[in-house]
Formats: sequence, structure tokens, C-alpha cells
Amino acid sequence: MQAQGFEMKIAATDGAARTGSLKTPHGTVTTPAFMPVATYGAVRGLAAHELKAINAEILLANTYHLHERPGEQIVEELGGLQGFTGWKGPWLTDSGGYQVSSLAHRMKLDEEGVTFSSTLDGARRTLTPESVIAIQEALGSDIAMVLDECVAPTPESHAHGDIERATERTLRWAERSTRARKRPQQAVFGIVQGGTDVQLRQRSARGLTELGFDGYAHGGLGLGETRIQRCEAVAAARESLPDLSPRYLMGLGRPVDLLDGIAEGVDFFDCVVPTRNGRHGLLFTSQGILHIKNARFASDSNPVDPNCDCLTCGSYSRAYLRHLIRCNEALGARLAALHNLRFYQHLLSLARDAIEKNQFASFRAEYDERLEAKAD
Amino acid sequence: MQAQGFEMKIAATDGAARTGSLKTPHGTVTTPAFMPVATYGAVRGLAAHELKAINAEILLANTYHLHERPGEQIVEELGGLQGFTGWKGPWLTDSGGYQVSSLAHRMKLDEEGVTFSSTLDGARRTLTPESVIAIQEALGSDIAMVLDECVAPTPESHAHGDIERATERTLRWAERSTRARKRPQQAVFGIVQGGTDVQLRQRSARGLTELGFDGYAHGGLGLGETRIQRCEAVAAARESLPDLSPRYLMGLGRPVDLLDGIAEGVDFFDCVVPTRNGRHGLLFTSQGILHIKNARFASDSNPVDPNCDCLTCGSYSRAYLRHLIRCNEALGARLAALHNLRFYQHLLSLARDAIEKNQFASFRAEYDERLEAKAD
Repeated sequence: MQAQGFEMKIAATDGAARTGSLKTPHGTVTTPAFMPVATYGAVRGLAAHELKAINAEILLANTYHLHERPGEQIVEELGGLQGFTGWKGPWLTDSGGYQVSSLAHRMKLDEEGVTFSSTLDGARRTLTPESVIAIQEALGSDIAMVLDECVAPTPESHAHGDIERATERTLRWAERSTRARKRPQQAVFGIVQGGTDVQLRQRSARGLTELGFDGYAHGGLGLGETRIQRCEAVAAARESLPDLSPRYLMGLGRPVDLLDGIAEGVDFFDCVVPTRNGRHGLLFTSQGILHIKNARFASDSNPVDPNCDCLTCGSYSRAYLRHLIRCNEALGARLAALHNLRFYQHLLSLARDAIEKNQFASFRAEYDERLEAKAD
Repeated sequence: MQAQGFEMKIAATDGAARTGSLKTPHGTVTTPAFMPVATYGAVRGLAAHELKAINAEILLANTYHLHERPGEQIVEELGGLQGFTGWKGPWLTDSGGYQVSSLAHRMKLDEEGVTFSSTLDGARRTLTPESVIAIQEALGSDIAMVLDECVAPTPESHAHGDIERATERTLRWAERSTRARKRPQQAVFGIVQGGTDVQLRQRSARGLTELGFDGYAHGGLGLGETRIQRCEAVAAARESLPDLSPRYLMGLGRPVDLLDGIAEGVDFFDCVVPTRNGRHGLLFTSQGILHIKNARFASDSNPVDPNCDCLTCGSYSRAYLRHLIRCNEALGARLAALHNLRFYQHLLSLARDAIEKNQFASFRAEYDERLEAKAD
């Protein structure tokens, strides 16, 4: 099945890196794109008009969390995520599998699906490939993810065959997911697994491509493997994926992870790093990372980043933001998250420009260094 | 001493109620006015431009909290509260006495001042009438409050003479405060004490008036006394206060407290009720109080208050706000606080109109009933 109302366009390439757009029923997303994480249907403390103002074009919501509260029926009754929340643009929902594995208690995974105790009320619940599609159809996201089995790529999990078994099961679940689909206006992305084993990654990508998804994600990464292993895993899968399908690197990351991913042909990213790190006082700037809690910012009247056009940098000083974050005042987390997300959106727009000009390699090298630096 | 750059105007009266304005060095405040509480120099989760958009004209900051963090020297270095925070309009700072009594550990009060252990680091600190003025001068607020001794008006505290002794000490401290003043551009308000004893209230008000403050506050109320006792205490003091000085009812309250106060000639109010209650899901509406966590709002697509013009009511449903507050998502507290503060500002603008039309009594009676009602 091919979802209706979607169209991927590649405007320019530079090596494996590419820039273009994905049309969805609720708007067009310029790629490569970063999706701010709206766990419960809201990005921590930020209103929809603010996300629009910093050029966010698509948000990610957590299927598991929304299934628990308020429940997908309520979201559906109010017109899906676009009707329920303030964000009228495109939404991607994850499958909930990762959240269940990492958050839920007494998790039991078998061929049927995953059974666990709710973090909310302790009740036993089961998610299957079919139910996860049904929940996301009710949530009304533009892009849904299949349920996958995600095993951290340790030497042991590879040696014991855990990664291989999880990769095979993910493929069988993917097949069940395609058969479960009922909503033509929703794209569904398959998820490549295989740990750091490039042959498993390729086999997984080929299997998913044969099933025919609307897009493909690189899953099970950012779980302890090295940066080089991760790049190789993404590159290996890419060769087996259709050129004209969107590719999404799940849950990563830091600005350098975005640049790594773009170099390997990734179109979509999501991560809690900009919001969570912001809340803890770690701010990304054009001059490097700034730990705002540091005493040297106590009476610093400069903006967080003089080259940034966000509300935070336009109206507030480093000294004030430091004070708010130290006092755990809600406005601090909000202003910090807004700035970091603006930094991400701006970084991606620079990356898109560099790809168009065939200068992505030099852009990446320059930024790699700058991003690791500490701002004066 | 008379502060420079201040002017109180009474435009209309209706019984003891009055409407007008107070000019300050950072802008003119229409009275009666409600001051949102910005404990650490920020109203919980709200940006300055949002407070302006709902017609807030003056904010209140906590001297004790800002003395602890970031310290008044830093605020002074950055240009006072207007330079340090995003709010460029008028600020009032409380004296910190109430916070010390209610929050600090091992509090010891004697004629010199109040000694306590910091809630932050446990260190012993002392606040005196003189140091409290000096701190507020460094903070650069437009209106500073004197240090007072605040004793809850119980039958015992009256019978044992505690209230009388605290009232006399507050007068002696007030005298020291006037002598400590060095900054001509800052108004200082004296604080009337006396519990629920109308004669003590009058004596306190007369004593302060003789000292000559720029404004007068009713202190030590909202601590267990009845609504009638409170109104009588405020009325008794009023008769001994100069007509053309601003009057401020400290720390109260609920919408009905505002109407009670206005009826007794109060010009200024502050309270954490709109922000704190909002965070807990209690919303004030033109149809009465709405407990948004209630299950009957689970799929309610209506705005919190169809008659409200705030961002929350313009862009979000009851169902979404309920969901955010249940999930403890920061956007929920922010949207609820914004709405409640807008409700307060709107209520006061209606009250001002009613005073101008000589219809305050009927307005008050109508709203008293409506405010207690539950919205359908």
C-alpha cells in the first residue's frame, strides 16, 4: 500500500547527503528535517505558534504515552492530533515499542507482541504490530511507525544471536503491520534493525523494501555503539533502500549526530536533546556549547547567542536565563528549549544550503569542530 | 520623604470603592490593579510579552527569594528588575518578612530585625528594616515595602497581646525604614497591622500616616480571619489613611477577595491564586469555577471560557488543557496561568467600569454569586 497525499522530492544531492521535501496531507516538510519531541502532544512548555515561529515543520508524539493518556479514542474524537493539540501541521508518531522496552515494568516480548505493566496504573497491557497501527490510525498522525524489537548492539547481543533474532522478528512484524493498515492518508515507515552488523542491516533493509513501506527508519542506534559503527550501519542499509523514500534516523541526537546522519542520506531526525539539555542549562550556540549555570554567566548581559533570532536571544540575557534555570523557574526551561530548538532548525537550514551548493563536506567539518567547542 | 515620579489620581468613586491610576517612573498603572506574582522575577512559565498582552501593568517580586538568588547586587548590576528581567514596566517588591516567617527555618525575631536560616544553604541571615530597604533599592523596584511583623489574628494572639506588640513593633520598624531611604525614585509603602482589632488597625494606620509613606498596605490578613472581620479591618484602617495615597491589600486573593477589597477602597492586589490554582487545574471563568481535571471535560472541544480573549481560550480546548495538566506537561500550567491571570485583569477592568458608572454594588453582588458557581 502506498499512502495517499504524500510525495518525496529530492531537490539536490551532495554525496549521499540530500535535500528536498516531503509533502504530507497536513503540509510540506523541508528535508533534512528535525522533529521536536511532543511526548504528550506538546513540546515541553512551548506553544504551537512558537514552534512555527522557529520554523519547525513537523512534530513527533509518543504513541505509548498518548495511548495511556488521554487514550487514542479521545484524540480521534477531537479530530486526531491536529484537532486535539494546537499543532495543525504534520505529525509523526513512534510505535511505542521503544518506550515500552525502556519504561514499562515486567516487559514480556514474544511473537505475538509485547506485554507489560502500565507505568500509570500497573495494569497488564499488550501491544501488537496490528494494535500499534490501529492506535496510530486513531491518533491520526501523518506518519506512523511499525512496532519493532529493539536490542542494544552489544558484542554479547550480536554473539548470542539476539540481534539477528530481533531483526528477523521485526521483519515478520513489519509484514503483519502492512496487512493491518486501513487508513490511506497515513504513511507507514518500516524500521531497519541489525545492530552494528552491516550485513544484518542490509538484509533488514532489503526485507522491508520488498514489503514496500512509505518510508524507512534506522532503528536500534544511539545505544552504545561508536559514531563510526553507527555511520556504517546507516550507510549499509541505505544502499538497499529505495532512493525516493524518506529515511529517518530515530532518536538521535546531538547536533553532530544530525550532521553524521545527513552525510549518510538521512532526511528525518528527532531527539529530546534540545529540550532536555536546555532544561538542564546546556545551550547550543553558533560559538559552541554554553553551560549557562556556570558562575561566569552570573551577570552576563549578552544574549545566549548573538547570532540567533529566537525570542530568548532577542529579549533575555544569559544572566537572567541562568538565574531562572538555577531557580527551576518554568520560564527558564521554556526559553532554553525554544533557543535550542531554534538552533537545530537553523543548523538544518544551513546544512540544506550547503548540500545545494555541494559544500556539505566542508560545512560538516567546520561545524563538527565548532559544535564541540565551548563558547567564550 | 515623598518619592519622585509618582502621582496617584482618583478618577471616580462609588462608596468607598475608587478607580484611577498611579503614575510610576516605569509606567502608569490603572487602579484597582492586580499584580501577578513573579517570585524569582518571572511569573511561572510566562514571558513578559504575554503578561503585557493580557493587560497586566505591574508585577510583584519577592525580595527574600531574589536576595537569596541571584542576590540584589547582580540585579542592580544589570539595571535593576527592569534590566534584569523581561518586564520593563513597574515592579513592586515585598519586604521578605512574610516569606521569612513562613518559609525559613529557626526564625528569631527581636527588636533589631529577623534572623533565620536560609532555605537555600542553611546559613544564618538577618533582615532588618534598614537592610530590607537597601536590598529593595538595589533591586530597583518602583514600590518597596517596609519590614513588618506579621502575626496571625487568632483569639489567642489577640488575648495574649501578641498582635498589639507586633503592631507597635511594626510602627517602630516603619519609622526606621523611613530614615533608611536613600533612593528618591522609589515609593515605599507602610504596612498596617493590628489583626482583627479595629482599634489597633486604626492606631497602626494613624501612626504610619504620621510617618508619611507613599502608600499604605493592609497586612496580616488572609490568615484565618472571617471575610467580615477582614472587611472591617480594612475599613477601619482606611478611615485613618490619606485619601490620595495608594492602598494595597497584601497577598489576597480569590476573585471574591478582590471585590471585597475594592468595596473597601483598595487599589492594589497580589496573589499566587491565579497561577497556583491554574497549575492544579482550577480555572476561573465568566460562568464560574471550572475544575478542568474532571472527567466530564475529557473530550470537551470548547474553550475554557467562550467569553475570554486569551491565547489559551483562543487556541486550545478544555480536553487538551485537561490532558496537559493531568500529564503534568509544562504547557498546561502555562496556559492555565495565562487564562486565570487574564480573567483577573478582565474582572478588574469590569470593576473599574462599574465604579465609573456608580454600579459597583450591583456588579459585586452579581459576580459574587457567579464566581462561586461551577461552570457547566
